[in-house]
Amino acid sequence: MNPKALHAISYGLYVVAAHKGDKINGQIANTVFQITSKPPTLAVSINKENYTHEFIKEGRSLAVNVLDRDTGMVFIGRFGFKCGRDIDKFDGVKYHLSPLGNPILEENSTAFLEVRVDKEVDAGTHTIFIGEVVDADIQSDGEPLTYAHYHLVKKGKAPKAAPTYIEE
Amino acid sequence: MNPKALHAISYGLYVVAAHKGDKINGQIANTVFQITSKPPTLAVSINKENYTHEFIKEGRSLAVNVLDRDTGMVFIGRFGFKCGRDIDKFDGVKYHLSPLGNPILEENSTAFLEVRVDKEVDAGTHTIFIGEVVDADIQSDGEPLTYAHYHLVKKGKAPKAAPTYIEE
Repeated sequence: MNPKALHAISYGLYVVAAHKGDKINGQIANTVFQITSKPPTLAVSINKENYTHEFIKEGRSLAVNVLDRDTGMVFIGRFGFKCGRDIDKFDGVKYHLSPLGNPILEENSTAFLEVRVDKEVDAGTHTIFIGEVVDADIQSDGEPLTYAHYHLVKKGKAPKAAPTYIEE
Repeated sequence: MNPKALHAISYGLYVVAAHKGDKINGQIANTVFQITSKPPTLAVSINKENYTHEFIKEGRSLAVNVLDRDTGMVFIGRFGFKCGRDIDKFDGVKYHLSPLGNPILEENSTAFLEVRVDKEVDAGTHTIFIGEVVDADIQSDGEPLTYAHYHLVKKGKAPKAAPTYIEE
């Protein structure tokens, strides 16, 4: 088996955000996909060790913020390579809270989709959170950032906790 | 809610193929994603009414053929808008059978990933098939076709059974 073939699967790049009481957190994720159209239902795979996992488990909802292709690496690094246990990731970031209490980005984002989680699938190191889209909107006419663009053009890497991490 | 925000999610485009006894079939799918890296595990969402769904249920495995960006619309139409109940979709197509019995494309494909299905999640109109990657390889240095490219450049459409179908 050639693990490089896993790189042929295409993804976008997102900040998946959630809340737990008054606290908010978010993380970079690439494994977001729509599984049915009626009703519109998303699946999101999150590492069990990630802080955001705790928030989604408790808050029972999440917001998918679709990153714009022009998002800078410092912003991506803040949400992808730092931990919300150590820093407030949203400090200094433009966002507002949805009626459900989840952070919706107001910068670097082309669209958002908010999901009420009603199913969890245990996938070993990760949980797949599944639920109906309860709110969504386009925020700019920018092009969504793809995982391929992040790797090829921005020379970005996958952290060890990512579903798509490959040891080199 | 603005359903157009669902279009901001990025996907690739694949021929998901399976077998049932000696019969083979395949269909276009865009909802393929990796959910864990150890072991490498994929999730694939397939409409319950599709013929390939029957094959995966019975054969307990599937092959994800990653389409090349240069794949012609006739080829995509054959796998995406026709039904294997009416025609033999692989007639005249270059492929070989994997040791598990699934068709691996030898044209229009940049890579393949074969999955042994060990979990099924009921998602209403669709089933999410989950399983470990048991074989995979790169087949060409071509660029994988993305769903965005299919819609924007090739002017392709989503059939009604697709998870990402939006009524216009």
